[in-house]
Amino acid sequence: MQLTPVPVVRLIEEFSRLPGIGPKTASRLTFYLLRNSAERAKALAEAIRQLHEKITFCSCCFNITESDPCSVCGNQNRDQSIICVVEEPLDVIAIERTRDYHGLYHVLHGVIAPVEGVGPEDLKIAELITRVRVSDKVHEIILATNPNLEGESTAMYIARQFQGMAVKVTRLARGLPVGGDLEYADEITLSRALSGRSEIR
Amino acid sequence: MQLTPVPVVRLIEEFSRLPGIGPKTASRLTFYLLRNSAERAKALAEAIRQLHEKITFCSCCFNITESDPCSVCGNQNRDQSIICVVEEPLDVIAIERTRDYHGLYHVLHGVIAPVEGVGPEDLKIAELITRVRVSDKVHEIILATNPNLEGESTAMYIARQFQGMAVKVTRLARGLPVGGDLEYADEITLSRALSGRSEIR
Repeated sequence: MQLTPVPVVRLIEEFSRLPGIGPKTASRLTFYLLRNSAERAKALAEAIRQLHEKITFCSCCFNITESDPCSVCGNQNRDQSIICVVEEPLDVIAIERTRDYHGLYHVLHGVIAPVEGVGPEDLKIAELITRVRVSDKVHEIILATNPNLEGESTAMYIARQFQGMAVKVTRLARGLPVGGDLEYADEITLSRALSGRSEIR
Repeated sequence: MQLTPVPVVRLIEEFSRLPGIGPKTASRLTFYLLRNSAERAKALAEAIRQLHEKITFCSCCFNITESDPCSVCGNQNRDQSIICVVEEPLDVIAIERTRDYHGLYHVLHGVIAPVEGVGPEDLKIAELITRVRVSDKVHEIILATNPNLEGESTAMYIARQFQGMAVKVTRLARGLPVGGDLEYADEITLSRALSGRSEIR
């Protein structure tokens, strides 16, 4: 006998498909929504529905935006000579939060990951090259992909594409995280911190 | 400057309202939906929307159901003389899974929790009393609220309501969990297991 009503089973299944949400959490979320008012559930459903309807990608930097070009690309006060290349829109938000960067962005929407079948052609790399070629303002490209295996190899791949072009390609510094403890730093981070040491003036 | 588009912020907020989902998980889920196809997001939104539309509560046992009365209350093959009282619809599913219970259910939709402002009148206790009074078939009420402080006091409260009535009120056995280890059992469970010991025949 099917005791759990079909709509409940369906929502549990849909929740389970989200990353990091197992069947137990999915059923907890479903019964939570069921216990709460229909308005609460409707607000969530509406927010999900509008996500793809209202969000588009900036045709210049491929960040998510409600209007094209996005608020960064459309802002003439931003430094047009630097492009910071990141993996995901979330990375843009992280860098903006520092309030230390005033250039432009370029969102790759992923990293090169052969194991998962993601090649350079699946990312916005060709668009980045065209963008830099067309503009005569860009002097520096900061490769801000994640400091892990895939991020590094993606950065190396992009750097190679710009070889011979009159543009400086840089990479975010690797080293000890601020507030971290030298004792607990892994060897690779520590050796990067050593090789990247800077003079105290 | 508002860098994250409003629909994205709104969905992150909606996700954050769910239990056990913090702002970080909420933003991870939102960007996951954004990266995936609009169809996937739409399926989730639709499943949430239909939850309250298609699900109703059984007017007899207050379990969730698509049709009233529910499949248990409407089934004449179930033992009409026993009612198992549980806190939530999920508990019904758990008990059904044992395949050892063939009576009826009554879902309280919570427990008495004065700290959170939940009194007996917020639960389906009055409905349970009426249900037992009206029927002449019910001989036993099994109180299957959770074996914790609130579950116990709710069970005690309900048991008191049936004092003097010609109905047997029982409580699920407390003891060592099957497959558990005596060495690691907490004292309360162990003392319950001792006092509830049964003769081997």
